[in-house]
Amino acid sequence: MTSIAVTLLSGGLDSTTVTAYAKKRNSQLTALTFNYGQNHSKEIESAKKIVSIMGIEHKLIEIPSLIDLASYSALINPDMFPIPSHTNVDEIGHSIPITYVPLRNTIFLSLAASFLESKVLQAIEIDGEKSENLNAHIYMAPNAIDYSGYPDCRPEYFEYMKQSLSLGSKIGTEYDIPIEISTPIISLSKVEIVRMGMRLKAPIEYTWSCYRGTDFPCSVCDSCILRAKGFKEAGTPDPLLLRLKDKKNA
Amino acid sequence: MTSIAVTLLSGGLDSTTVTAYAKKRNSQLTALTFNYGQNHSKEIESAKKIVSIMGIEHKLIEIPSLIDLASYSALINPDMFPIPSHTNVDEIGHSIPITYVPLRNTIFLSLAASFLESKVLQAIEIDGEKSENLNAHIYMAPNAIDYSGYPDCRPEYFEYMKQSLSLGSKIGTEYDIPIEISTPIISLSKVEIVRMGMRLKAPIEYTWSCYRGTDFPCSVCDSCILRAKGFKEAGTPDPLLLRLKDKKNA
Repeated sequence: MTSIAVTLLSGGLDSTTVTAYAKKRNSQLTALTFNYGQNHSKEIESAKKIVSIMGIEHKLIEIPSLIDLASYSALINPDMFPIPSHTNVDEIGHSIPITYVPLRNTIFLSLAASFLESKVLQAIEIDGEKSENLNAHIYMAPNAIDYSGYPDCRPEYFEYMKQSLSLGSKIGTEYDIPIEISTPIISLSKVEIVRMGMRLKAPIEYTWSCYRGTDFPCSVCDSCILRAKGFKEAGTPDPLLLRLKDKKNA
Repeated sequence: MTSIAVTLLSGGLDSTTVTAYAKKRNSQLTALTFNYGQNHSKEIESAKKIVSIMGIEHKLIEIPSLIDLASYSALINPDMFPIPSHTNVDEIGHSIPITYVPLRNTIFLSLAASFLESKVLQAIEIDGEKSENLNAHIYMAPNAIDYSGYPDCRPEYFEYMKQSLSLGSKIGTEYDIPIEISTPIISLSKVEIVRMGMRLKAPIEYTWSCYRGTDFPCSVCDSCILRAKGFKEAGTPDPLLLRLKDKKNA
């Protein structure tokens, strides 16, 4: 059985952990990183460093039009909506946050599936591989516990999306290869993700979670707060903070 | 009831007919045209002319990365796969054609839905409109008869995609506004589409269907053959050919 797979790598802790998980399970793995006008390029630099350390193929996908299309989001239009600073972790996750980008995961999955299907079609129709020996996987790092507020991070959404991708593709309908969406950390808490990432020896020291693009994580955005809580509960210091402090002291 | 809608306009006969249909039904309509490295820009020029004649808002969406991602397609990589010339119309539509672009409609629908959701969220959260007075529609021109070979032109695919878009969006889950996908010509034959376009006074003389980007339609690609058959059965000359001939003689 040959598994052709892609992993959606933002450069954050969650997607890096999922990428380390996918690497163990797939011989043909490509990491896809989307550049869609995030507020900073720190995540993309992190993703590049991570794939080079892990030794996997990398593809940067530019979606410049997303800024214009999904304009109603604090992640894309910070002037319109300042990114909130929470001081209490319990405030996070009770309604859909303003950092929600309309249909972002659906756009990412569609583009990822297009790339994946092209690879699988080439394997069958050009390289002559047998379709019954192939499967196709998209690995993604949604987390239903921390991000229950995001509609496109919920398990029922992924169920429908998997059907849509398979029904809308040649490999799904002509070769009976469903496009699987694997979400290995969807039910994990942040502390469990931290432990999983450490266990898999993911290069956590190069991950970037902060919504801001400053030299040092801001420590007050939702993403920084959740990350800090995860490491605190795991009883281990954040390798990123250790590396940055070492760098500062060097 | 306010209907916020987008229509996917390639510049061809089918999508122009659907756009004319959508215009009659929606006060807030935006036509979206995707530029993804098609073989020629003729379609885009046609779309621009059509929206200016119809007087509707237009948005050109650049997806340069699609060339790279969905590389396994004759529509994107003509050198890899020459576009076939059929001499017999009955040869068309029996298997998935090599002009199929992996997951193209899913990518288009995701981007269209993102734009649409941004508009609806602004109407509710900025302009203060009541969600129960709003609905959200994507108009699209798949045709299950002529394009039964394309998996992403079949009704069952659209059913799942509608669920995916609604479940993956804030308007679908928090405001109970499903993202509807309207496919008004999905069950029509080409002759019925021709008649519908003429009845709606769609600017057919500016549409472009040919897969090639020459000055005059090639008349031998699948798309030209199907179009010619439609006009022949409707017993009316193709307004595009009349216009081009007039132009040549002028």
